[in-house]
Formats: sequence, C-alpha cells, structure tokens
Amino acid sequence: MSSALITLTTDFGHNDYYVGVVKGVIAGIAPNARVIDVTHGIKQFSIISAAWVLAQTHQFFPPGTIHVVVIDPGVGGAQRPIAVEYHDAIFVGPDNGVFSGLSLDSATVWELTEPGFWRDTVSSTFHARDVYGPVAAHLANGERLEKMGRKVETDTLKQCSLPASRKTDGVTAGSVVYIDRYGNLITNIPSGDVPDGAHCIVGSVEAGFLSTTYSSVAPGNPVVIRGSHGYIEISVNQGEASEFFRADVGTGVFIT
Amino acid sequence: MSSALITLTTDFGHNDYYVGVVKGVIAGIAPNARVIDVTHGIKQFSIISAAWVLAQTHQFFPPGTIHVVVIDPGVGGAQRPIAVEYHDAIFVGPDNGVFSGLSLDSATVWELTEPGFWRDTVSSTFHARDVYGPVAAHLANGERLEKMGRKVETDTLKQCSLPASRKTDGVTAGSVVYIDRYGNLITNIPSGDVPDGAHCIVGSVEAGFLSTTYSSVAPGNPVVIRGSHGYIEISVNQGEASEFFRADVGTGVFIT
Amino acid sequence: MSSALITLTTDFGHNDYYVGVVKGVIAGIAPNARVIDVTHGIKQFSIISAAWVLAQTHQFFPPGTIHVVVIDPGVGGAQRPIAVEYHDAIFVGPDNGVFSGLSLDSATVWELTEPGFWRDTVSSTFHARDVYGPVAAHLANGERLEKMGRKVETDTLKQCSLPASRKTDGVTAGSVVYIDRYGNLITNIPSGDVPDGAHCIVGSVEAGFLSTTYSSVAPGNPVVIRGSHGYIEISVNQGEASEFFRADVGTGVFIT
Repeated sequence: MSSALITLTTDFGHNDYYVGVVKGVIAGIAPNARVIDVTHGIKQFSIISAAWVLAQTHQFFPPGTIHVVVIDPGVGGAQRPIAVEYHDAIFVGPDNGVFSGLSLDSATVWELTEPGFWRDTVSSTFHARDVYGPVAAHLANGERLEKMGRKVETDTLKQCSLPASRKTDGVTAGSVVYIDRYGNLITNIPSGDVPDGAHCIVGSVEAGFLSTTYSSVAPGNPVVIRGSHGYIEISVNQGEASEFFRADVGTGVFIT
Repeated sequence: MSSALITLTTDFGHNDYYVGVVKGVIAGIAPNARVIDVTHGIKQFSIISAAWVLAQTHQFFPPGTIHVVVIDPGVGGAQRPIAVEYHDAIFVGPDNGVFSGLSLDSATVWELTEPGFWRDTVSSTFHARDVYGPVAAHLANGERLEKMGRKVETDTLKQCSLPASRKTDGVTAGSVVYIDRYGNLITNIPSGDVPDGAHCIVGSVEAGFLSTTYSSVAPGNPVVIRGSHGYIEISVNQGEASEFFRADVGTGVFIT
Repeated sequence: MSSALITLTTDFGHNDYYVGVVKGVIAGIAPNARVIDVTHGIKQFSIISAAWVLAQTHQFFPPGTIHVVVIDPGVGGAQRPIAVEYHDAIFVGPDNGVFSGLSLDSATVWELTEPGFWRDTVSSTFHARDVYGPVAAHLANGERLEKMGRKVETDTLKQCSLPASRKTDGVTAGSVVYIDRYGNLITNIPSGDVPDGAHCIVGSVEAGFLSTTYSSVAPGNPVVIRGSHGYIEISVNQGEASEFFRADVGTGVFIT
C-alpha cells in the first residue's frame, strides 16, 4: 500500500522557514505521508491567483490526494477553516475564496470545528502550521472528516470571481490571468473555442495567428498557441512575451 | 516502522545545485531517510540568523529528527565538525556558533573525528556534502555517535550572542531579529511578558496597542500582535511593516 | 527494498507550479518513487548550463538513479525525446545538447517512441509533464527502455560544446563557467593540472596564489582554491568574487 499524498500551495515564498515548519508538524502526525510542493510562489495575499493555480493543477495529482491551500490575509479573523471533498480529492484551507476555481456542485464541504485534530495551541497568525497541516496529516492517517467537523451548504462558501472570457460578434475577449517565469502570457480563453487560423491581439498589439509550437516562429518573435493548460497562451520564442507586449495580469486579449 | 527524518537549514539559496547534491549523497547512504528543507534562504554567512532560525523551528519536528545546519564561512579552516544531542534530537554542523540558540545545559556534544563516516574524499569547501550530510545519513541508519567521534565539554562550543530584550522602569526594549516575506517584523520580545493593552514603538514611530489578529485593523494599518513563535510581531494588515516603518534587522522596538 | 530515485534538473524556476505538476504526474504512475530536485534555477533556455550542471552532479547520486533534465527551448519542434543509459544511471530529456557533459562512449541511447508510456494527451509545450516525467516514472516502476523506444547511434545525438581550458607555454587559459549564490567563480580548469604555488589572473586582475581554504586570507580578500567539483575556483573570503573581479560567465582565467 502506498502512503497518502499531501500537496501544499501557499504564498509563503522560499526564503522563510514557514514551509519547513508545516512539513515538520505533518511529519510528526503522519510520518508516512508524502508531501509535494505545488508552489509557494503565489503573490502575497492573492486569493484569486491561488484559486486559479489550484484549478490548473489539482487534476494532475492521483486520486486521494489531500491539497492544502493557504493564502490567508485574514488569518485569525472570522473566516472558517474548511475541507472540500471534490471528486477523489480533499482540499483543506480557509473559507476565503481560494476554492473558487473548483466546480463545487458535486462537492461536499465541511467546516472544521474539532480542535482535537489541530495543534494543542493555535496561534492567531499561522493556521497552516496549527490547523490546516495537522488536519491534512490526520486525513493522511485515514481519519474521517465526519469526526473533524460538520457539513455546511456548498453555497455558503465565499467565492471570488475568476475573470472569464466572453464571445461577442465573433470576437472572443479575454485577459491575461498568469505570467510565468518565461514571460509567457496565459489567458482565460479556452483553446477548444479557438479555430485554426484565428488571429490574436494583446492589448492593442498584433500577436499573429494561432500556431502549434514556440518554434513555429523565429527566436524573438511572438507566437500564439494552445497552451498546455487548455487555454490560449502568447509567447515569444526564446524571449519574454510579458516584456514584448508590456503586458501584465489583466491585460486584454482578443481573438478574431 | 517509519524511516528517520533529516532536516536541512543552510544559506545555499535555491538557484544552485548544492542542496540537490547533498540530498544525493544522503540518499546513497540512507535510501529510506526522509529529508525536509527547513530553509536554504539564510542570509549568506549569517551564523546569527541560522542560530535564530534553528531555535524557532526545531521544536516543530518529531522526536528523533536529525537537523543538519550548514552556514560555514570558515569551511576548511579550524572549526570542528560537531554533533549535539539535545532533548530527543541530534544537530549536526560546524562549531561556529550556529547552535547558540539551543539551551545546551542538557546537551551532549560530540566532535566528529571519524572519517569512516564521511565521503572518501573531503573537499576543503563543501563539508555539507562531504561530512555533515554523510554523518546525518549514517545516524539515520541507526549508527551511534559513540563510533563517530568523541565527547567534548559543552562549554567549549563557540557561541554567538543572540540579541536579548531588556526591561527597565516598565519599558521593554528589544529589536527586530527577523523580517519575513510579508515584511512582518519579528522581535526578540517574548509575548508572555507583554500585558494586554501594551503600547509599541518601532524605531521612533508609533505602532499602536497590542491586538490579536492582523485583521484587527483596516488594510494598510500597522498592528502589534503576539506572533506565532512566541514573540511580539509588528505587521501591516495586507501590507509590509518593514516598508511602513523603514525597519531592518536591528531596529529598536519599545513596549510600554 | 528501497524505492527508485528520480532527480529533476530544469529551468522552471521556483515561483510557478510546473515542478509541482510534474511531481504529481510522477506520483500518479510511480507512488513509491522518491524525487529529488537537483535544481530548477538553470538560466532559462540555457542548454549549456544544464549540460554543465548535469556533468557536475550526477556522480553524487546512487546507482540506478533516473535523471530527468528539461531545458527545452524548442519543445514541440523536431528534437527527439531520448533516454541515455550511462554507467549505472538513466538520463531522460530532449535531444538538444543537454547531455553533452557526459562521456557518451560507453552509453546506450534510446529514442523514446512509444506513446503508451506518456500521458494520454501530449501538449506541444510541456513535455516534462507529458513525456519525460511519465517515462521516468515507468522506469522507476521497473519498466524497460526496450519497450519504450528504439536504440539510436550515440553519435547522432546533438552536442553543444562546453568550453574547455587549454595549456600553452606553461600558461593554462580557461574561463568562468558558473557563478554560484556566494559569487564564487567556478572555472573549467581541472584542479589536478594545477601545481601548488600556481598563480592566477581573472580577466586582467591579480587573484593571487593557489590556497587551500577560503579562510587562508582575511575577509574581503580574493582566494584561489581547488574547488569541491575538481576545478579551480576563485572566491572572496566572506565576499563575492563576481563583484570583486567584475567577472561573468565567460570571463577568462589564466594560471601560470
């Protein structure tokens, strides 16, 4: 039998020791659980980025994975700690909108109310260490959510609205939702809706026609592709599209 | 039986391959050991930061954990490689002050003298790979410190003095000892000594009264709290206290 | 029996979620495989840096390790996915020169042609997730390369030429090939060729005589040593040699 898998998605960054401490607490409760870092590079306090990253990544993990998501600007305040059972996975984190990227229709949501599954002392500022990490570790040990809290209605969850693309008169208008290390512009325009030969504008700058690979164009030139996440991406072959187009998260993208 | 746990705390950063190589060497000796990164983001050569981080983190790991700490500006010079048995854990690293944050009264200290537990060739510049990693891996395999070196007196260990706070005439004077990714100012003033309603000044700037959570104040405003590590912290709700107060490590903090 | 070991060397950086997703896919196929990050800090698109890092690091991992190397500026284009059996290890990645640092004489090379060992859908931009990660995971499960592709001649592999040092009239001329977090200048001049008492110039600046440790000189002074990787390194004791010498990758280094 293979051991349970826990993932971590946070805005903790990589220079502090917060991630290490959460892993130490998990190891103390569930020594056999494996832990994978999805990312700790979410922009500080950006609930919407976390929701988007979660929606792009959870499907690549095996059934039974326990995802801990902690972007928590209001930690210690009024938001509830929750767990979401969704398909074959469980998501654990604050009820502040970080789960907005999941289609919650088929989900069961639990408010975590039982401090017996938390650290003995719960600080007002580090719930990843004191609540979410321990809960994930107990789940990895096979404990059931029934014992950890109480079911709540799905529609009571806080939602943040991820920007959607819209099609009007043959023009699809979307926006840049993520920029990666390479300067690639990842949009919210589903690739499936875009026909071969479509034409793309970023902001007010020409980006060209839909291609298949980065190397369809010469180095330094922009290229529009169906990205690996199922959305239209704009890149510059061996360059940075974010610089080329002076684009940022939120910049408009138009497909005709 | 669960496998042994090794942690790594270094100033190696994240862009080089040094951490990866240390893990490769450990995996070659102790394939079943688990390795957790506490942090590799300690400021280069900052023994005092490492000592502080170690003191804040080791207690969150399970009994039996082996902590490798390598901040080693004098590597290849005269300092001894040592191992410290302390409570239920073992700490491995250079005798240069990185263990100053531990109360060594109840510790047993070993100078590591037996090259049979090191790599065959020991470089003069990479003891994490050649000495400390291998020693930790052999400890993870159940080898005993008795075979790896000889006991030395605790009071022969090099110490660096972590700055302490002082209380005079009702004013507690401390300082900022750590600034995290969020710009939070973590001080050396123990929370337990500070009564409800206490008032705080950072440098010469008003920080307000002790609160309970970040969200006790409106976004953009400073807030003084009992931090998750047991010390007073000054934050700005959804902002950066380090910028707000133009504070750095060493900036004075005063509680009245 | 201990579980198989997979390493990852990429230019993905640490802020995106790409590494996490590759690990999720590997965990889905080979739940018992252990994964170690060698580095994700290779400069974007720098095949030559990846080739150099791989040559410096693979020997520190235990026999049987599976190394995944993905620096892939031409992803989705014409280069072949390959696997290289070399000594006791297997290397998996694109045929674009990233394996140039290995002495391929004794290697067996396979073109990966069997999509049955890939993800069901293969994107044109993320082969680490869709091809290389899954292949490594199947290898970790004990699957054989014979089933995954076909042998190709070693001399058909794309090579990039790592700069070599040259000795003429008693002067060894090499160059800086890597600069680490500490600003250490790592050269391509093998330490074994350099006698005690040799003298070193970086660019046109005096660096002094060969020493044994960083602390052979006072803090702030340059020091030339036999580095931990078997090559001459130039450092500044507790400082940054890259700043001191205004050196970059490619700067000439001369030993007399």
